[in-house]
Amino acid sequence: MKIRRSGRLVDMTRYLLDHPHQLVSLSMFSSRYKAAKSSISEDLVIVSEMLAHDGTGKLVTVPGAAGGVMFIPGWSKDKSLSMIDGLCEQLSKPERLLPGGYLYLTDVLGNPRQVKPMGQVFASVFADRKVDVVMTIATKGIPLAYAVAEQLGVPFVIVRSDSRVTEGSTVSINYVSGSSKAIRTMALARRSLPRGANVLLIDDFMKAGGTIRGMMSLLNEFEANLAGVGVLMEAEGAEKKMVSEYVSLMKLTNVDSDEGLVTISRGNVEQFLK
Amino acid sequence: MKIRRSGRLVDMTRYLLDHPHQLVSLSMFSSRYKAAKSSISEDLVIVSEMLAHDGTGKLVTVPGAAGGVMFIPGWSKDKSLSMIDGLCEQLSKPERLLPGGYLYLTDVLGNPRQVKPMGQVFASVFADRKVDVVMTIATKGIPLAYAVAEQLGVPFVIVRSDSRVTEGSTVSINYVSGSSKAIRTMALARRSLPRGANVLLIDDFMKAGGTIRGMMSLLNEFEANLAGVGVLMEAEGAEKKMVSEYVSLMKLTNVDSDEGLVTISRGNVEQFLK
Repeated sequence: MKIRRSGRLVDMTRYLLDHPHQLVSLSMFSSRYKAAKSSISEDLVIVSEMLAHDGTGKLVTVPGAAGGVMFIPGWSKDKSLSMIDGLCEQLSKPERLLPGGYLYLTDVLGNPRQVKPMGQVFASVFADRKVDVVMTIATKGIPLAYAVAEQLGVPFVIVRSDSRVTEGSTVSINYVSGSSKAIRTMALARRSLPRGANVLLIDDFMKAGGTIRGMMSLLNEFEANLAGVGVLMEAEGAEKKMVSEYVSLMKLTNVDSDEGLVTISRGNVEQFLK
Repeated sequence: MKIRRSGRLVDMTRYLLDHPHQLVSLSMFSSRYKAAKSSISEDLVIVSEMLAHDGTGKLVTVPGAAGGVMFIPGWSKDKSLSMIDGLCEQLSKPERLLPGGYLYLTDVLGNPRQVKPMGQVFASVFADRKVDVVMTIATKGIPLAYAVAEQLGVPFVIVRSDSRVTEGSTVSINYVSGSSKAIRTMALARRSLPRGANVLLIDDFMKAGGTIRGMMSLLNEFEANLAGVGVLMEAEGAEKKMVSEYVSLMKLTNVDSDEGLVTISRGNVEQFLK
C-alpha cells in the first residue's frame, strides 16, 4: 500500500519515538512507505522541526550507505525545569515526611505519567555519554531506571539486597550505609552485566551516598565503567557526601518533623541542561 | 506560531501516544496549533487511519462539549501473536533453565524495548475492563507492571515481601506458596491503594498461582476489586492452578534439565485478542 505524506508523518513519528537512540535507515522507511528517499528526507525535516519546536528531542542524521536517522530524546532546559519545579511543589507536603528523614515518593514513582518525564530529563542530561546499561537497586529505583533506560534505548539491571534463586549465580559485595554506618549486602546476577560495560547508576533517593558507593564497588567486581550517576532526590544533610559527581533533579533541603516543614528545591541538574 | 497540517500531524501523534487512555479536548489542539476544530478533526482522521493500519491502537472520539479524543493502545491479534512467537523462540534455550523449574528472564525483563510490547499486548487485552491501578509483587514483575500501567494510563503499586521503613505503615498478609507450600508474607503500603479501586494483577511468572492468590487476599484487605490477572509466563505442571481466570502470554510446557530441553509455547492470550 502506498501511503501519502500525511500518513507517513504520523507513522514515522510513532516509529521514531518508539526507537530512541536507534539508527533507522532511510531505506527502511522508503520501502515501508513505497516512497522515494528524497520524499522521506523531506518528511524527516518536518518531524525534526516539530520535535525541536516542542523541546522534546532532535533527529540526528548519519550520512553514508550505513547511515540513517536517529531520534535523540532531549528535553529543553525550560521544559525540564518547569517539570522539576512542579514536582518540587507537589512533594513539599508535610504529610509526605517519613521516619528517618525520608519522603514518601511511592505514589509518584508508581505513576508512569510522572516517571517518564523524569526519565526524559535524565536521558537529556546523559545523551552524550556512552551508556550501555542503566543500573539501579531494588525496589524503588526500578521504575525510574526503566524510564531512563527506555529513553536511552538501553537495558537496565537491578541490584538486590537479597539473592533470589531465580536469577542464577550472583556476585555480592558488602558496603557501608553512609547515614546509618550499617554493613549491608548487595548482589547482582553474574550474567546480567558484561565486562567493560559503561554503566549509568540511577536511584530514587541519596542521603550520604553509601548505596551509590556500593554500586560503584560492584561495578569494579564486574570490571565495568561508571558512565554517570543520577538521583531523583538528594537530601542535604550534615554528613559529607560519599559521591562527588552526580546529577540530582531535586534537593530536600529542610526537614522539620516538629514543625511539619518540608522544603524541596531544584537539585544540581540545571547546570547539566542545555 | 501557526503550524501547518504536516507539523500538526507530527505533534498530535506524539501527544496522543504520550497520553494513552486520556481524554484530550479538540479545543486544546485547536488552541495549541491555532487551527479550526474542523481542521483538527480532519487531522485526527489521518492519525486514526495510520494507527489502525499499523495495528497499534485506535482513536476513540467522545462527542459533546466535554468530549474530545482518546488514544486506546490496542495491538492487533496478528501483531501480538507475532511478538509472542518471537519471544517464545528467544526464550526456548536450555541455558535459561534455573534450579526449581524457573527460567532466566532477567535480561528480557530488563529491556524496555522488549517489555514495552508486552505491556502493549496486555493493555490490548484489558482495554475494555475498568482498571484503576496495576498491582505487582517485587522485584521482577515491576518492569512489566510499569509497561502495562503506562499503556493503560494508570498508576501501579508494588507489593513487597518485606516492609521497608520508607513507605509508612503497611498492611501485610500471610499466604501459602502454591508450589513449595511454604508460608510467606507480603505487604503493601497502606496509603498506596484507595478503597474500591479496580486492580489488575500483573506478574512475570506463575507456577501454581500462590502469589497471585496472595495478592487477591491483599485486595480484600484493602476492599479493592479484582479487574483481571495477567502473567508473562505460566508453568504447566502437575499441580492444580490456584487461580482460574488469568491471561498468560507464554506457557512453559516442558522442562527437562537432564536433556537440557525447554519448550515454550503461546499462553492462553490468543482467545482474548481480537
